[in-house]
Amino acid sequence: MSASDPVTAAVLVIGNEILSGRTQDANTHFLGKRLTELGIRLMEARVVPDIEAEIVAAVNALRARYTYLFTTGGIGPTHDDITVDCIAKAFSVAVVVHPEAKRLLEDYYGDQVNPARMRMARTPEGAGLIENPVSVAPGIAMENVFVLAGIPRIMQAQFESLRHSLVGGPPLISRALTVGLPESVVAPGFGALQDRYPEVEMGSYPFQRGGRFGTSLVLRASDPALLDQVAGELESLVRELGGSAEWSV
Amino acid sequence: MSASDPVTAAVLVIGNEILSGRTQDANTHFLGKRLTELGIRLMEARVVPDIEAEIVAAVNALRARYTYLFTTGGIGPTHDDITVDCIAKAFSVAVVVHPEAKRLLEDYYGDQVNPARMRMARTPEGAGLIENPVSVAPGIAMENVFVLAGIPRIMQAQFESLRHSLVGGPPLISRALTVGLPESVVAPGFGALQDRYPEVEMGSYPFQRGGRFGTSLVLRASDPALLDQVAGELESLVRELGGSAEWSV
Repeated sequence: MSASDPVTAAVLVIGNEILSGRTQDANTHFLGKRLTELGIRLMEARVVPDIEAEIVAAVNALRARYTYLFTTGGIGPTHDDITVDCIAKAFSVAVVVHPEAKRLLEDYYGDQVNPARMRMARTPEGAGLIENPVSVAPGIAMENVFVLAGIPRIMQAQFESLRHSLVGGPPLISRALTVGLPESVVAPGFGALQDRYPEVEMGSYPFQRGGRFGTSLVLRASDPALLDQVAGELESLVRELGGSAEWSV
Repeated sequence: MSASDPVTAAVLVIGNEILSGRTQDANTHFLGKRLTELGIRLMEARVVPDIEAEIVAAVNALRARYTYLFTTGGIGPTHDDITVDCIAKAFSVAVVVHPEAKRLLEDYYGDQVNPARMRMARTPEGAGLIENPVSVAPGIAMENVFVLAGIPRIMQAQFESLRHSLVGGPPLISRALTVGLPESVVAPGFGALQDRYPEVEMGSYPFQRGGRFGTSLVLRASDPALLDQVAGELESLVRELGGSAEWSV
């Protein structure tokens, strides 16, 4: 990888409960935000059911394509927790009991230890552990794949434990202008601005509040001076169109 | 397709703003819930950025594999709204101005019509329209692909407009038992129950409330009598383990 290659990532959310609409995934949103801050571009997210062949295929497609892959879900103590076995299969290695994970879980559970709990000491052979300060059972690091819990609070703690090991690029800075005009009114001028500054990523997001349509215009770039210049031009454009314009983070 | 083949679906969420963590996707959750009610199994969801090649590849992979594909986002009036062009490319057809969409938008906007707004009358050649009772600009139906807006209120209205055209299988019924025991305590008995009833889908979802760990055990099947029987056995199991057990929807 050369210094100018963008650092990329994918998220793989594992779990029937997300697809059936029982639970709303919050982990992609958290990871997207944190990775952006670290200069890593989340390029793709997928949700797959608790089916081995689906998980293995998605892990192999995504880990080959992006710098990092983060999986969430399926690493608990029950029969539907099959992520560890799938990761091992994707890497063609065995599942082993990780001695350090075993020790952590035995210390934590004491005489409450049972075979279901000790399932959480299983890792693909050669994997490292990711600290879990919330509930001890560790996440797993396997080459460029990070295997995290599904429960948001635990996943977030595990992410903060591993993030020092991630190498990001220059972070994209973003500015958002909230405009009191419908999207279609700003569209021509905003499109022309994009044509003049292809190196700035520009997005337009309509919203409706109290029956009125407005638009949030977002600029993203890694060069702050360039961003300031384009932001100035954008604000002038909106004022010329007669719209209110307010910057937010 | 034979009568016993499961009816399946995928969701493709299109938009940089979801991947950067700026916006949290709510559409997958809505579609997962509604499709489950209609007897259609959501098997996969993907989020991809506003990049033509990525969108085209995902559309073609997902429409070939599942009964239905629903896309959300990228059908507005601005330069970053490229979904229609991508769908046309995926089907190898031209983009045309749809006469009925043109008429709807002209009637709605009157003398406020402009080229950006009329972009929303463009469809892949051969596409049908999906009614949008919120803001007129229609969704698009192209064979088994339904192209919907990204704004949740509009997407939901478009989904309700099209749902009469979906053919579902027998809906899965679900029962959820909230158990006052940690997941690892119920895991052995719950796993044994799954082994005895492979035709019932069983999921275990741990939660933490006020410092105590509990578990939600979910049973799903299309046969209500079978579900009742398994639910009875599950409740007995939990009571034997000394846990509280409460059924919810």
